[in-house]
Amino acid sequence: MRHLIEPEDLDLEEIKQLVNVGIDMFENPKDYAKVCEGKILASLFFEPSTRTKFSFDSAMYRLGGNVIGFSDAETTSAKKGESLADTIRVMGYYADIVVMRHPKEGAPKLASQYSSVPIINGGDGGHQHPTQTLTDLITIQKYKGRIDGHNVAFCGDLKYGRTVHSLIRTLARFGSKKFYLVSPEELQLPDSLKRQLIERYGVELVEVHFIEEVIEEIDILYMTRIQKERFFNEADYLKLKDSFKLTRDKLKPAKPDMIVMHPLPRVNEIGYDVDEDPRAIYFEQSQLGVYIRMALISKLLEVGPYARG
Amino acid sequence: MRHLIEPEDLDLEEIKQLVNVGIDMFENPKDYAKVCEGKILASLFFEPSTRTKFSFDSAMYRLGGNVIGFSDAETTSAKKGESLADTIRVMGYYADIVVMRHPKEGAPKLASQYSSVPIINGGDGGHQHPTQTLTDLITIQKYKGRIDGHNVAFCGDLKYGRTVHSLIRTLARFGSKKFYLVSPEELQLPDSLKRQLIERYGVELVEVHFIEEVIEEIDILYMTRIQKERFFNEADYLKLKDSFKLTRDKLKPAKPDMIVMHPLPRVNEIGYDVDEDPRAIYFEQSQLGVYIRMALISKLLEVGPYARG
Amino acid sequence: MRHLIEPEDLDLEEIKQLVNVGIDMFENPKDYAKVCEGKILASLFFEPSTRTKFSFDSAMYRLGGNVIGFSDAETTSAKKGESLADTIRVMGYYADIVVMRHPKEGAPKLASQYSSVPIINGGDGGHQHPTQTLTDLITIQKYKGRIDGHNVAFCGDLKYGRTVHSLIRTLARFGSKKFYLVSPEELQLPDSLKRQLIERYGVELVEVHFIEEVIEEIDILYMTRIQKERFFNEADYLKLKDSFKLTRDKLKPAKPDMIVMHPLPRVNEIGYDVDEDPRAIYFEQSQLGVYIRMALISKLLEVGPYARG
Repeated sequence: MRHLIEPEDLDLEEIKQLVNVGIDMFENPKDYAKVCEGKILASLFFEPSTRTKFSFDSAMYRLGGNVIGFSDAETTSAKKGESLADTIRVMGYYADIVVMRHPKEGAPKLASQYSSVPIINGGDGGHQHPTQTLTDLITIQKYKGRIDGHNVAFCGDLKYGRTVHSLIRTLARFGSKKFYLVSPEELQLPDSLKRQLIERYGVELVEVHFIEEVIEEIDILYMTRIQKERFFNEADYLKLKDSFKLTRDKLKPAKPDMIVMHPLPRVNEIGYDVDEDPRAIYFEQSQLGVYIRMALISKLLEVGPYARG
Repeated sequence: MRHLIEPEDLDLEEIKQLVNVGIDMFENPKDYAKVCEGKILASLFFEPSTRTKFSFDSAMYRLGGNVIGFSDAETTSAKKGESLADTIRVMGYYADIVVMRHPKEGAPKLASQYSSVPIINGGDGGHQHPTQTLTDLITIQKYKGRIDGHNVAFCGDLKYGRTVHSLIRTLARFGSKKFYLVSPEELQLPDSLKRQLIERYGVELVEVHFIEEVIEEIDILYMTRIQKERFFNEADYLKLKDSFKLTRDKLKPAKPDMIVMHPLPRVNEIGYDVDEDPRAIYFEQSQLGVYIRMALISKLLEVGPYARG
Repeated sequence: MRHLIEPEDLDLEEIKQLVNVGIDMFENPKDYAKVCEGKILASLFFEPSTRTKFSFDSAMYRLGGNVIGFSDAETTSAKKGESLADTIRVMGYYADIVVMRHPKEGAPKLASQYSSVPIINGGDGGHQHPTQTLTDLITIQKYKGRIDGHNVAFCGDLKYGRTVHSLIRTLARFGSKKFYLVSPEELQLPDSLKRQLIERYGVELVEVHFIEEVIEEIDILYMTRIQKERFFNEADYLKLKDSFKLTRDKLKPAKPDMIVMHPLPRVNEIGYDVDEDPRAIYFEQSQLGVYIRMALISKLLEVGPYARG
């Protein structure tokens, strides 16, 4: 039995195959409308996240399956003092596969050790969110034709943004050799991750302070939300947030086939007038997230394109 | 693509057809058990309303579809500062149709401008609740054989009751020429609505203070809840509430085929001993609400009786 | 139309049949995957209980049906002052069967008097929880080959534990003649229940203070949670809790085919090292709970093995 706790649980071939299956599901959804008939997904959100929950629920329904679950931990037996191990052991009798979001790092990993059914990590604290990474990868594949070999810039909060850490590491695994990092001093990529990227994968990291410095060269601009809470004082935040905001003007010199990605929700780091630009594909990215989750559920349940024998 | 934000979004022919389709769905539910197979309804209740939510969820399941959603806004990305426009844009990837209840007037209208799938207004503040109006109309059609041409009395809170405003305006559109209004001074129909009814539709409004004054003449008695919060002091409320309460005694002189309607929940404005009277059809009204919603969902999704071509 | 409010609503033959149908559903789930197609379960949890809710939801989905519902009463019309009778009357239009958990004793009974569809009591205060009893019975049948004729010990909180009261009474109805009771003075079986068991069923009750005194003789050990809140002071609780905790050592002298049951959630009344012992079947018990609920839903809806004519 397989689980997905972090992107490293999948090798590069498996990721490529997931991405291709996901794209085929996107293009031919009717072919997959019954592959999970009779199966149940338990969608356990110990911490709320409507978007991720909806994406998984929608994925399971589009495969013909059903969903049980909760959107916050208020009503669970955890409140009666039950251990996560016990909760998960019983869950395997109610459902055939579990997606779990938890505020504590490592909770899905722990759960996977006791579970009789596959566990998908739907986000554990600031740690991992592997299905976001898969969503990013299917988007890159669909819009740029391949996963590796692009000039990618990451912009915004590179310190706390787990989606950035995960994606940059996975792109490095795929052989990407150069990344542009655009962030305020306070929110730079952690040193440990930089070291890992340079030493293990031989990556070159180019740090700049303004989107304008790199906009002409890049193929992919990955934007993230800068949260006010990350700054010591509001003045710093207010001063900085506009430098890292993408506007129509800043986008102008970019290549015509460059793409702008964002894991959403977006607050004000991308101007609303950017939405109409064909290079802005963050909403389509969200859509592809449903299909890569359909592929993943099928893989872990060994149904449809992943049926055995 | 069509939305339903207010009853005026539908012309009279469309309403008549919806009502007829709804009645056929009520009488032959099995014929419609799969018309929404593979479709997903997002039921977004930014404000709780179990009854309306259940009615929509049940409607979608009885059409063979599935439902994702939430019952209050506590767990949504709105809390992270996301705009309603962004929330709705993404929702179109998770679902094929959206019903939305929102405390802010106009929110569903705004949503419809950004949505890639049909939006149904499930109630926006004190403003509109068009599927309640459709529920009222299907009930009148089923129990009285036609929508217009009845003597209708509205009783209770005519000032704040959005269901009353909507229904009276729609009946006027259908050609009804006379309405009886039974309410305390404090809770009379707003002047602007009275003017509109008189000037635009040539309606005659008869205002009385007691149900007893009109009970013998009317074909339909539409009751509403009088809420304590509407009065300046509790004494006024206590003094008045009984005058506007329907009892078995007051109902006695009514025509044998008169019907008593109520949008529910009922608190104490209709005595429990009225429930057994065959003229009391407010529970059946609630039931018909499921079938008119089934008709509406089919229309907006263009499936089943509304399939194109 | 039938309801299940307390185990006594079913005669012994009906219980035996339910247990057998449940076991067949466990062994041949595919044969039952569509018996509730087109049916809707309303799962109304006026008090949270994730485990019971998931068990019912999973049961309904495994029968091919759908589920509407809520996990706490915060969002219901009850808050607007609606009576339970009205809530339930309307529910019959949204769903084909209702499971209801309520903090007030007697609420499901009251609901059944107004409902147009079958009501299942999913637990009402400290009163009844009949599907837990059915879960216990199917487990005993499956693991011990028959329901009656075993030496059963109940351990822990025998005063407030409604699952114990229900099971012991039902086993007495089935003809069991002797029970071992292991509990602190403060948490003994209520006198009224003891009298009933002795006088009506001729049962012999053996009260002891330590598991060790009975462990060699018994066929079934039914453990329950001892809650801190039941004691006047924490010192008493701390002193006692370990005496009533099942450990690997205490289990050693038990018969090799003895079984340890627990309604779950377990907190610390069973050591985690007991889990690996083949006699520990409390997780399997939880699993069987899904199948007995599938049997019950089928019976009350008169579908599948319970279809008429």
